[in-house]
Amino acid sequence: MYRDATIEEINDAMSQAWNAFLIYRKMSLKRRADFMRAIGKEVENLGDELLKVTQEETALPEARLRGERARTIFQLNSYADACEKGDWLEARIDAAVPDKTPPKPDLRKMLIPLGPVVVFGAANFPYAYSTAGGDTACALAAGCPVIVKAHPAHERTSEMIAGAILKAAANCYMPSGIFTHLHGFSFEVGKALVTHPLTKAVGFTGSFAGGKQLFDWANQRKDPIPVFAEMSSINPVFLMPEKMKQSAEDVARSYASSITLGVGQFCTNPGLIIGIDNDDLNNFILVLSGQIEKAIPGDMLNPGIFKNYVEKRAETLSQKEVETVAVSSQDPVINQGAPTVASASAQAFLNNPVLHHEVFGPFSLVIRCKDVAEMTRVARHIEGQLTATMMATDDDVRSNPELAEAVQNICGRFILNGVPTGVEVCLSMHHGGPFPATTDARFTSVGADGIKRFARPMCFQNWSNDLLPDELKNENPLKIWRTVDNELTKASL
Amino acid sequence: MYRDATIEEINDAMSQAWNAFLIYRKMSLKRRADFMRAIGKEVENLGDELLKVTQEETALPEARLRGERARTIFQLNSYADACEKGDWLEARIDAAVPDKTPPKPDLRKMLIPLGPVVVFGAANFPYAYSTAGGDTACALAAGCPVIVKAHPAHERTSEMIAGAILKAAANCYMPSGIFTHLHGFSFEVGKALVTHPLTKAVGFTGSFAGGKQLFDWANQRKDPIPVFAEMSSINPVFLMPEKMKQSAEDVARSYASSITLGVGQFCTNPGLIIGIDNDDLNNFILVLSGQIEKAIPGDMLNPGIFKNYVEKRAETLSQKEVETVAVSSQDPVINQGAPTVASASAQAFLNNPVLHHEVFGPFSLVIRCKDVAEMTRVARHIEGQLTATMMATDDDVRSNPELAEAVQNICGRFILNGVPTGVEVCLSMHHGGPFPATTDARFTSVGADGIKRFARPMCFQNWSNDLLPDELKNENPLKIWRTVDNELTKASL
Repeated sequence: MYRDATIEEINDAMSQAWNAFLIYRKMSLKRRADFMRAIGKEVENLGDELLKVTQEETALPEARLRGERARTIFQLNSYADACEKGDWLEARIDAAVPDKTPPKPDLRKMLIPLGPVVVFGAANFPYAYSTAGGDTACALAAGCPVIVKAHPAHERTSEMIAGAILKAAANCYMPSGIFTHLHGFSFEVGKALVTHPLTKAVGFTGSFAGGKQLFDWANQRKDPIPVFAEMSSINPVFLMPEKMKQSAEDVARSYASSITLGVGQFCTNPGLIIGIDNDDLNNFILVLSGQIEKAIPGDMLNPGIFKNYVEKRAETLSQKEVETVAVSSQDPVINQGAPTVASASAQAFLNNPVLHHEVFGPFSLVIRCKDVAEMTRVARHIEGQLTATMMATDDDVRSNPELAEAVQNICGRFILNGVPTGVEVCLSMHHGGPFPATTDARFTSVGADGIKRFARPMCFQNWSNDLLPDELKNENPLKIWRTVDNELTKASL
Repeated sequence: MYRDATIEEINDAMSQAWNAFLIYRKMSLKRRADFMRAIGKEVENLGDELLKVTQEETALPEARLRGERARTIFQLNSYADACEKGDWLEARIDAAVPDKTPPKPDLRKMLIPLGPVVVFGAANFPYAYSTAGGDTACALAAGCPVIVKAHPAHERTSEMIAGAILKAAANCYMPSGIFTHLHGFSFEVGKALVTHPLTKAVGFTGSFAGGKQLFDWANQRKDPIPVFAEMSSINPVFLMPEKMKQSAEDVARSYASSITLGVGQFCTNPGLIIGIDNDDLNNFILVLSGQIEKAIPGDMLNPGIFKNYVEKRAETLSQKEVETVAVSSQDPVINQGAPTVASASAQAFLNNPVLHHEVFGPFSLVIRCKDVAEMTRVARHIEGQLTATMMATDDDVRSNPELAEAVQNICGRFILNGVPTGVEVCLSMHHGGPFPATTDARFTSVGADGIKRFARPMCFQNWSNDLLPDELKNENPLKIWRTVDNELTKASL
C-alpha cells in the first residue's frame, strides 16, 4: 500500500499545478490534443503487464480490461479530436457598432479553462473513469492541469497509468505540474485537495456518500467551486403492457444479461424494474428467474464492494414486503456477488425508502403495479437517475404520455427498448442526471461535452486583433465554428 | 406595502407552476418566443404610467427608465429570437452503427428545461433584471415557468409588470401557473421559495449576503438545485504606464463619468483603480478629482441603499491608510450619494480586507503601486469580478503578460480601453465571473447564453423518429443547427 500524501505534498502539488496552468492554458488546442493522444499511446505501451496488475487488484476479467483500456484510449483520442475541433469553445463574436447610441463595442467570447482540477478515480472503472479516464481527458482538453487521487482499490494500476501520463508529458514538453498523482486512503487527503485554494473544480465517480461529501466541502469553501460527482443510480426500467404482451420473454433474457453484466458493478445497472402485475409480468419473472438461477456468481471488484453488496442486498431482502424471486443456484464463495432478483408491490415501494436505495451489484427489484397509473406514481417517487428505460411499443409511449413525462423528469438518458448498461462514448451521450445521480444535471461525464465542466466563458471587449487569442482573431486561423453576429460560420471577419 | 406571501400561497404557486411546466415545456419554440414577444408588447403598453410609478419608487430619472424599459423589451425579443433559432439547444445526433461490437445505438441529445424557476428581482434594475427581466426571459425561453419574488423597493412597478406578463400569458393561451408574482419582505418567503421541492433553479441579482444565503439554502436541500446569483463586484481598472503617459487626462474624464453614472449603482461600477504612483497618476487623480468635485450628488435608489452607501463609504474612508482625494463639492441631502474618490497604497490594500469590499454607489478607490510588479500582486489578491479593465496600449499588454494573466484569472469580461459600465445585450457578452461575482462562473446572466442556466441535456436512445421531439427528428423540421456525427449541419438525416 502506498503512503498517503501529506499536507505539504498536497500544497506542493497544487502550487505546481497552478504554475503549470499558467503555461498550459496558453498552449494551442493542437498541443493539448497531441498530449492527450500521447497519453493514449503510453497507456497502450504499458502492455499486458498493466492488465495483469489490474486483474490482481480488481478481479476484473482480462477481456473486460482489454475492452476498458481500448475505451480509455478511444476517449483520450476522441476528446483530443473534439478539443482541436473547437466546437466546445462556444466562440462568439459581435462586431462593434460605433454609431449605435451608446456605441456597441467589439465583443468576443470563448470558453477558457477553470484552473487545476482534482479527479477522484472510480473503483469500478480502473482505466476509463480513473487516472487517465474521462474526467482527466476532459480537464486536459479544457486546458486544466490535473491532480488525481488514486483509488485505493487499484493504486498500483493507478501508479502505472500515472507513469504513462508523466512520460507523455515529458515527451510533449508539458510544464512540470501538468499532472500529479497522489494517494490517499484517509478522507483527509480528499478534503485537503477539495478545499485547497488553488483547486478550481472537482471530478468524481463513486458512491453517494463520497460524492456528496466532496460537494459539501466544495460549497463550504470561502469561494465555492464546481464539483461534478457522478453518484448513485438505480436506472429504473418500465415494462409497458403492449410490449410485454409481444415479447416478455425476450425482454427478460436481455435484462438477465444486463443485471449480471460485470457482476452488476456498473452505474447504469438496472436495479429497478416496474411492470403491471399480470400474466405477462409473471412470464417475464419466470424467464428472468431461470436466467438468474443459471447465472454464475462472479468476483466483485474488492472486499469493500463485496461487503457492501452483501449488506445492502440483505437489507433489501429483509424488508417484510419484499419477496426473493430468484438467486443464482451456484453458491457464491467469499467476494462473489450472487445474482439476485426480488419483488415487491408498488405500495410497498412507495412506502419504504429502503427500496429506493442502490444495491451496487447483480441485483434487481421488480415492482408489481396494478396499472399504468400506478407505474406513473412509482415513477414520480423515484429520485434523479442517470438513465431510465421504457420497454414499449410506439403505441405504449403515445397512449401513456404522463408516464413518459414522469420518466423524463427523473433521468438524463431515456432509453426505448434497450438496456441501460453500455454507455457509448460520443457527443450525443449524456451521462448525467438530476440529483442524486449527479451533483449538476447540466453537465455530462461521458462524451466531449464533458469538457465544458471545466471551462468558463471569458468575454474580450475592445481587444485589438493581434492581442486576441487565435480562436477569436478576425482571420479565424484555426478554422473553427464561431457564432458571428448571431450566425454560425467558419468564415473570417 | 403588499402583504408577504403565506406558505400556503407559495405551495399553491409552486404546484401550479409545476402543472404549467408539464404543458409549457411541450410547447414549440415558436410559441415560447411569441409569448416572450407578447410580454414585451404588454410592458410597452403600460406606457408612461409605468415610468411614473417606478420614478416614485426608485428615484431613477425618466430617461434612464425609458432606456431600461427599451432594454428589457429588447432582451425579451432577442432572447425570443435565440429561443426560436435553437442554437442554444445543443442538438446532437449520432447515428446508430448496428454492426459495431457492441452495436452503437441511435443517440440524440438536446437541452430540456429544468422546471419552475424562482427569480429574485434586483433593486437597481427595476425592469431589466427584475420581474420581466433577463432571468425571467431566459427561463421562459428554456421552457420553464417563473415565480418572481418582487423586490420590496419597487413592488408597485413589479405588480404592474406582472400584470403585463399575465395579460400576455392569457392572450397567448399559456397554462395557468406559467408565471406567478409574489411579495416577500421577510426572508422567510425567499427561503420557502428556494427550498420548495418543486423549485428547480434560482436566479438572483443583488448583494453578496443575499445571493450567498440563497446559494447555501439551495445546496442544503435534500436535492441541491442550481442558483445563479450575480452578486458583488468592484470591477478593478488597471492603468498601464504607456497608456497613462499618452492620455492620463482623457482616461480620468471617462472614468469620472463611469464612476458617477446612475449614481454609481451599477454592478459594473469601477470601484477600484490601480496605477503606478508617478506624475501620470497624479495628473489622472487631479483631473478625476476636478470632475468628481463638479459631479452632482444624485438620489439613490432607496433609503436602504443610501444608508448602506453612507456606512460603507465612511468605513472605507476611516481606514487609517486611506486618503480622501475628492468629494462632490455640492453638499448632498438625505438619500443622495456623494461622488467620492479615495486613495491608498498597494501595501495598505494588500493588508486590509476592508478595502476589497464593494461600496455600492459613486465611489472609487485609487491604489498607488510602486511598479507593474506591485500592480500584479494587487491583481492576484482581488477576488472574482464581473469585469476587469486595462487602460493600455498594445505594448503595455504585451510587455506585461503576468499582469494580463492575473487580471484574466479574476474576471468574466476583460475590457481594453473602455469603461466597465454599459453591458451590451448580445450573444458575445459574458455577465458572470468567478466567485463572489457570481455563484457559478460557467454561466452568464446577460445574453442568450443565459438560457442555458435553466436547461439540462436529455439523451434519447433508440427512439423512433415519430416519437422524438421535432428538434431531433430526421427531417430537421425546425431547420436548426445540429451536430450530426460530430459535424455541425442544418441538413436532414
